[in-house]
Amino acid sequence: MFFQFNENETLPGALSCYHKYTSNDLLYSTSPIDNTLLARVSCINAEQYEKFVQIAQENFLKWRNIPAPQRGIFVKRFGQEVQNKKGELAQLITLEMGKPIRESLGEVQEIIDICDFAVGLSRQLYGLTIQSERPEHKMIENWHPLGLVGIITAFNFPMAVWAWNSTISWVCGNVNIWKPSEKTPLCALALHKIVSNLVREMNLPDISFVFTGDYKIGEQLSLDKRIQLISATGSTRMGRQVARNVASRLGKYLLELGGNNAIIITESADFNLVIPSVVFGAIGTAGQRCTSTRRLIIQESIYERVKEALVHAYKQVKIGDPNDEQYHYGPLIDENAVILYEKSIQSAVFHGGKLLYGGKRIESSELKSKNYVLPTLIEVEKDNPIVQEETFAPILYLLKYKTIQEAIEINNQVAQGLSSAIMTLNLRESELFTSQNGSDCGIANINIGTSGAEIGGAFGGEKDTGGGRESGSDSWKNYMRRQTTTINYGINLPLAQGIKFEI
Amino acid sequence: MFFQFNENETLPGALSCYHKYTSNDLLYSTSPIDNTLLARVSCINAEQYEKFVQIAQENFLKWRNIPAPQRGIFVKRFGQEVQNKKGELAQLITLEMGKPIRESLGEVQEIIDICDFAVGLSRQLYGLTIQSERPEHKMIENWHPLGLVGIITAFNFPMAVWAWNSTISWVCGNVNIWKPSEKTPLCALALHKIVSNLVREMNLPDISFVFTGDYKIGEQLSLDKRIQLISATGSTRMGRQVARNVASRLGKYLLELGGNNAIIITESADFNLVIPSVVFGAIGTAGQRCTSTRRLIIQESIYERVKEALVHAYKQVKIGDPNDEQYHYGPLIDENAVILYEKSIQSAVFHGGKLLYGGKRIESSELKSKNYVLPTLIEVEKDNPIVQEETFAPILYLLKYKTIQEAIEINNQVAQGLSSAIMTLNLRESELFTSQNGSDCGIANINIGTSGAEIGGAFGGEKDTGGGRESGSDSWKNYMRRQTTTINYGINLPLAQGIKFEI
Amino acid sequence: MFFQFNENETLPGALSCYHKYTSNDLLYSTSPIDNTLLARVSCINAEQYEKFVQIAQENFLKWRNIPAPQRGIFVKRFGQEVQNKKGELAQLITLEMGKPIRESLGEVQEIIDICDFAVGLSRQLYGLTIQSERPEHKMIENWHPLGLVGIITAFNFPMAVWAWNSTISWVCGNVNIWKPSEKTPLCALALHKIVSNLVREMNLPDISFVFTGDYKIGEQLSLDKRIQLISATGSTRMGRQVARNVASRLGKYLLELGGNNAIIITESADFNLVIPSVVFGAIGTAGQRCTSTRRLIIQESIYERVKEALVHAYKQVKIGDPNDEQYHYGPLIDENAVILYEKSIQSAVFHGGKLLYGGKRIESSELKSKNYVLPTLIEVEKDNPIVQEETFAPILYLLKYKTIQEAIEINNQVAQGLSSAIMTLNLRESELFTSQNGSDCGIANINIGTSGAEIGGAFGGEKDTGGGRESGSDSWKNYMRRQTTTINYGINLPLAQGIKFEI
Amino acid sequence: MFFQFNENETLPGALSCYHKYTSNDLLYSTSPIDNTLLARVSCINAEQYEKFVQIAQENFLKWRNIPAPQRGIFVKRFGQEVQNKKGELAQLITLEMGKPIRESLGEVQEIIDICDFAVGLSRQLYGLTIQSERPEHKMIENWHPLGLVGIITAFNFPMAVWAWNSTISWVCGNVNIWKPSEKTPLCALALHKIVSNLVREMNLPDISFVFTGDYKIGEQLSLDKRIQLISATGSTRMGRQVARNVASRLGKYLLELGGNNAIIITESADFNLVIPSVVFGAIGTAGQRCTSTRRLIIQESIYERVKEALVHAYKQVKIGDPNDEQYHYGPLIDENAVILYEKSIQSAVFHGGKLLYGGKRIESSELKSKNYVLPTLIEVEKDNPIVQEETFAPILYLLKYKTIQEAIEINNQVAQGLSSAIMTLNLRESELFTSQNGSDCGIANINIGTSGAEIGGAFGGEKDTGGGRESGSDSWKNYMRRQTTTINYGINLPLAQGIKFEI
Repeated sequence: MFFQFNENETLPGALSCYHKYTSNDLLYSTSPIDNTLLARVSCINAEQYEKFVQIAQENFLKWRNIPAPQRGIFVKRFGQEVQNKKGELAQLITLEMGKPIRESLGEVQEIIDICDFAVGLSRQLYGLTIQSERPEHKMIENWHPLGLVGIITAFNFPMAVWAWNSTISWVCGNVNIWKPSEKTPLCALALHKIVSNLVREMNLPDISFVFTGDYKIGEQLSLDKRIQLISATGSTRMGRQVARNVASRLGKYLLELGGNNAIIITESADFNLVIPSVVFGAIGTAGQRCTSTRRLIIQESIYERVKEALVHAYKQVKIGDPNDEQYHYGPLIDENAVILYEKSIQSAVFHGGKLLYGGKRIESSELKSKNYVLPTLIEVEKDNPIVQEETFAPILYLLKYKTIQEAIEINNQVAQGLSSAIMTLNLRESELFTSQNGSDCGIANINIGTSGAEIGGAFGGEKDTGGGRESGSDSWKNYMRRQTTTINYGINLPLAQGIKFEI
Repeated sequence: MFFQFNENETLPGALSCYHKYTSNDLLYSTSPIDNTLLARVSCINAEQYEKFVQIAQENFLKWRNIPAPQRGIFVKRFGQEVQNKKGELAQLITLEMGKPIRESLGEVQEIIDICDFAVGLSRQLYGLTIQSERPEHKMIENWHPLGLVGIITAFNFPMAVWAWNSTISWVCGNVNIWKPSEKTPLCALALHKIVSNLVREMNLPDISFVFTGDYKIGEQLSLDKRIQLISATGSTRMGRQVARNVASRLGKYLLELGGNNAIIITESADFNLVIPSVVFGAIGTAGQRCTSTRRLIIQESIYERVKEALVHAYKQVKIGDPNDEQYHYGPLIDENAVILYEKSIQSAVFHGGKLLYGGKRIESSELKSKNYVLPTLIEVEKDNPIVQEETFAPILYLLKYKTIQEAIEINNQVAQGLSSAIMTLNLRESELFTSQNGSDCGIANINIGTSGAEIGGAFGGEKDTGGGRESGSDSWKNYMRRQTTTINYGINLPLAQGIKFEI
Repeated sequence: MFFQFNENETLPGALSCYHKYTSNDLLYSTSPIDNTLLARVSCINAEQYEKFVQIAQENFLKWRNIPAPQRGIFVKRFGQEVQNKKGELAQLITLEMGKPIRESLGEVQEIIDICDFAVGLSRQLYGLTIQSERPEHKMIENWHPLGLVGIITAFNFPMAVWAWNSTISWVCGNVNIWKPSEKTPLCALALHKIVSNLVREMNLPDISFVFTGDYKIGEQLSLDKRIQLISATGSTRMGRQVARNVASRLGKYLLELGGNNAIIITESADFNLVIPSVVFGAIGTAGQRCTSTRRLIIQESIYERVKEALVHAYKQVKIGDPNDEQYHYGPLIDENAVILYEKSIQSAVFHGGKLLYGGKRIESSELKSKNYVLPTLIEVEKDNPIVQEETFAPILYLLKYKTIQEAIEINNQVAQGLSSAIMTLNLRESELFTSQNGSDCGIANINIGTSGAEIGGAFGGEKDTGGGRESGSDSWKNYMRRQTTTINYGINLPLAQGIKFEI
Repeated sequence: MFFQFNENETLPGALSCYHKYTSNDLLYSTSPIDNTLLARVSCINAEQYEKFVQIAQENFLKWRNIPAPQRGIFVKRFGQEVQNKKGELAQLITLEMGKPIRESLGEVQEIIDICDFAVGLSRQLYGLTIQSERPEHKMIENWHPLGLVGIITAFNFPMAVWAWNSTISWVCGNVNIWKPSEKTPLCALALHKIVSNLVREMNLPDISFVFTGDYKIGEQLSLDKRIQLISATGSTRMGRQVARNVASRLGKYLLELGGNNAIIITESADFNLVIPSVVFGAIGTAGQRCTSTRRLIIQESIYERVKEALVHAYKQVKIGDPNDEQYHYGPLIDENAVILYEKSIQSAVFHGGKLLYGGKRIESSELKSKNYVLPTLIEVEKDNPIVQEETFAPILYLLKYKTIQEAIEINNQVAQGLSSAIMTLNLRESELFTSQNGSDCGIANINIGTSGAEIGGAFGGEKDTGGGRESGSDSWKNYMRRQTTTINYGINLPLAQGIKFEI
């Protein structure tokens, strides 16, 4: 594999995550497939942190003066390299994180897509020219790079989320510092190697850094006034802390936190779409997407039919080695995730939920670790406290509703506000659902599930999801600062609002 | 005057700030012109806070379903009412806050302007339709109202800043809660009376509330999860606290905090523009604008000439009753402001600054209070600690520079990042100043001063100014939530990024 | 009435349409209600044409230098004047053109709405700032006024269509020349009087001219190189000639020509919406809107039900004096229109159509002219040649379809491409209809009829409708010229695309 | 070379321009370098025209249903193929058209750039969602493909101009028919071969056709109602005819016609930039760009200095084989171009112009044809009729001005309105030049010359240049049709403008 790390290698401007830095703390990257140790990765220490932030600051002064379309050429080349190594990168994701290889390929494709999008943006990043109220004046709005951008990512998309941020941030002119999940450092290092080689080849300053380590690195970044923007993906608990830290120093942040995503199944839903979209939403990536479907809100008249079809479908779900395409999903990320899975099920049942399918870890000699769990269906009432919780596991709660208004209420009753969907052929329902009276989520889909966003739209959510948007639409504005200029090219000095002032 | 408050009157949906609420704390509104007590205003109490927030929530559910162009009609009517009462409103500003009547008229004009702008927006508030990568799919972006918006304003623009926020927030579909400065409650009540009458006349729900009180009300709003957005104008200290509070609950905020604004005077500057723009910037509103000019960065070859011209101009500045148009400015807001003025001058001189003009309070029997101060010019080195401070008073620091790069460095060396300007006829200088290598402020003007923004541009600043933008351009997006929808209108369910998943 | 014209009056910069210009040709304005002569209006002669175009050119040089937001203040004031005279203007429309007074009020409301919209635009008219590929370069896009804009309008919207064009054109900085329909000159003169008074009051140059006359004036404008843009509303035949003339001199044009608008009634349509939307679309304005519904494409399974309901509804339609609110519509514009109405019905029947209701002129002593006709329903096959024709009269053709694809084919089978609609609660149908495979019209509505557009959207159509767009969205760009600027503020001269060239 | 055409080869969906079609007319492609015959290319005949237009129509129905981002993948692959063959394509341009190899490489780079840009657009092509004035209504704007787009190009950019159009048109969903210049058919065939191979490889329908032939093919396309858009680059005479033809059928057109471009050299101009930008502008591509600099408008106080510097520079210009990088330019396109060159010079001198340098054909045994001419400088008065003419040759007219207003007048005194530039360090001059009072051209540059546009901006000009815009900014809208939809998702039917209508 191209990203085989060599102990003696020195990556330019990199990150000190090698065995030789013996004094540093170590991360242990383990494959959830079989719990084998993949590598030990040394964490960044205080001295390195300081040194690399300073280099990043210096390099920013160069990078911001490279025109955006030329920065785009770097991103284009990066996308080509990722394309060339698509298979290998996908294998690494599956190895370190455990998601099915097809989904890993999809994740790498997302990197390629966002590169294309960012390259297009590199000749846009449009500001406005604006009409001034004063003669011989004009107004103009320019967008400038921010400086350093800290990117904190989670294990479940160990590559794509960073790419959404970094590629757009690069064309915007920033230097990026990546704090990957401590569970997936190798995915970060693999991408970093591509970046590093390319930077060297194109004779560019180092514009990407990886700061390996645990949550304390993230905290340090969030408190560091030199990091203009922190883009953080992860739990609401983490995000709240990051927000508080960054806000206290009046920095900028972009949060992509927890989801607790529901699909509403209406009477007019096309059953041919319902089952696959629900099943993929609930068990894809073993339920470890922030957009995974966790709640199903079903019209009472079709409730039984949906329930039965789901139980039937779940029986056919195959779990096993994620490298093998016959399996629908593989292991959870680690033992702890399995425990949370079990606790959630117990809690759901304790509060009156009825287990319909699954509900336990898979004990099988064919599986190489104990991280595999059964996909789980639980029938609950809407006041069951478990529906307020986001558990990163393939558990789906079934709820019943009478009216579409009630369905929307249930959808909106949780603290999180990321993704939501409705399955309906009735346009009044679909329009209501996406109106101001509908879903309170950042994503509200119609006849597709909650997970699997395209990069062209703005991605993110409201409420405890943190309010940030990344990827498409005008999300790039998060990575720049806006400057409003009024130019007077006349020989007089009229004041705004017609104020008179003479000396 | 139309806004004479009647003890027995009950404003609908209003705020209980009348003498009869004897149990409430009282604010004492005093005119800085002569220190007379204008009125006692009762503060909102805990019970009222709760009650009005609940009403606001209920009314939001109605208001958001009134189409935006119809909400715009309300704003249009509001603008007409303000136009009709322009003179009276301006007089009240001058009375309670002390700014010259011409500037007060300008402030009211700004309300009228922003109404026109908001009305235009009411048929826009554009989202995007976006190309989907999947057949028979399309993507769409809708913007929806947020809910409740808390607007915290400062004494120096006791009407306009609220109007920037409230009018746009209204067309966006929100209900607004205004916490005005405790120094200028009557300005708030006067505008509120117009709103209340209009709301009654148009048979609308109450969509505007005024919460009178001290900083604790602001703090309560910032901690209240039911207030989706806090838009706060004021000191950096206050803003930092608001940011931390709102961030901790993952709410949204928009901050307009301190400025420390400089004008760079280059060799090629047109002297006919320099003196008026500097003098207006430094002494307009008695130096109490967040965009007031506090620092002058002068090319060394013209330094003496500028200095002399300024001293000459300052000698002609007339200070007195702000209702009298012959005076350039009136009193500072209160005794405390005068003390800060004096302390800043002492500190500047202590650290080596040289007093060129002014420097003291005006003792004159013709003035009806001791709140009047002389406009002040002080020559300083760039490492004088006083240049880091924003003092709300007519003090201007003169600094010298050799190269344009050095001038930009001085401009950027302060913690605040609101407004900045360059006086030059050399386009290389003007372009450099507004480039990524130039001013780090949100506003960077050319051949006009730092103060006096038009409402068509986005207003706000970077760094300790808080990063918010309000008024023109696409600032309205701050007052709404974005929803991304992917619609599948086909009979298949392709996944994004070409992922294959079959059950 | 305020617009009573006085023989001795001289309107500034106006148009010479008064009796005293005895040498000019005369237009005879007649009320279709009772065929009384309302006024004789003298046409512009060759000398006047030349003189006013020259004045317009001179005034443009002043008007373009008045900042757009100040031009917006003129439009705001104009809107207020129209608001003040709303009732009188509506009465004049009804008097001269014959549409029901409620619709006339709606037409005047449209003027008020577009004024608000244009005022909002006056602080926008946004160009872009664009990233350059070269260091120390930037790109910028400015929009500038065009110059003179010729506005040719039709009788059916004798005020609003001009207002859509003129108000936006004004804020864009142009001077407008209006060639109104020879059938409705008084409507033009009434509005012109408001404009003229306002221009005088605000001390502005004359920025609006009315060129009364027959089609030859329109032709002259279309051939006149000094008129940068011709915006023409009317028949396809006229539009084709205008297009050819303007194209030959490489001028700009914006065409709003004929429509032949259909509503598709699907099985899932809500009957409560179907009948009113169809009836209003077909008989509103006596079928004389360019967006009037002319064809009904009905799913076969509900065909009979729709047909019966329509016949039933048509029996209740009341025709009479349009000033009387009890009547649904009044007279056609003139005798000629009645003849065309009769011929169309004959042709439809001759080719196999079956008359279901109406089909003839109303002979009644209560009516004061012979311009009143019965609303008409005709059942036709889709190959009946009459369905290709746009007849400005309340005739509706009923067609039958089996599949939604067939319905769309029928919708698209005509030469015109203005408006279309579908009545459905099925989102697959609504999405298909508005997709690239759906309606080929500029307007494609869902669950509302074909007529009655809001001003916020871009209005206009494809194919023989002429391709123009006016009113909302970014239609304002039609009234301006775009200028792309690349600024080099560095000391080097790199070429685009990295070309090397050294001397 | 990859584009060696094989007599027996059959390109899919192509155009029959091979020797075997013996009955067709023939084009003779000749190299201007040495007048050798490069190839005979058979023209398309009437039968082929019909057949291919029909195929194009059928394929459009498939192509428009491939999602835009997937169409973008085709364009991305096309760009990669062009990148891979960059050198060979550039050589072919130089061979067939005669421009210096460095410029040919730049032209190919432009194709690559526009591909990147178009790929970015493929996930945008944004319409708007718009606020409706009615409850439970929303408005939405979608952009749909047009159908067939005819692209008529000129010899001087035998590849890039087509690419600007075709790549954007493709992502917009159209099928393109290219009518290349009869002087450069091989350049068209080479690109077409790449497209054809790729289409086959990607299993796509044929979405690109080349219609070789003379002007009659262009005329036929312009008259063909099935071609929704004609995008034509070439002479004003041709454009006027195309415009008239297309307008007569109410089609769409986009014109890029003649330029007559001037640079204004002000007193404050940086001489280090003046000479290279003028010389490149005037003699680059042997003066055969539509943006070539044809007029120099020089402030009188520096006139002599500029003149002398130019004469000095022109003496160093080397003309010769364009494949050899030491030469600044090569031959004109053909003998006829040389004759026009000579006639223009004679006319300029006859009307009082003074020849400063050059003025004749180069007679040299080292040159392999008689198509090479000297770069020419002529001093003229502004009323010399020759300054109204665009001659595609390296002739530059020098004019003198006193005031900046006069300079702008001279700039604007010609019929064409493509490109213009000012060399100045004075921002008042640069702002005036790009204001509504400045240049009337579509391009107005500052401190770079008139030629060499980046693809990110909208390219095109006003007046006799035809008014079209292509390439960057929102030029893509020319290639699509806009559809405005109002959706009613409620159970009532309110009418716009509050009209009441009840049956």
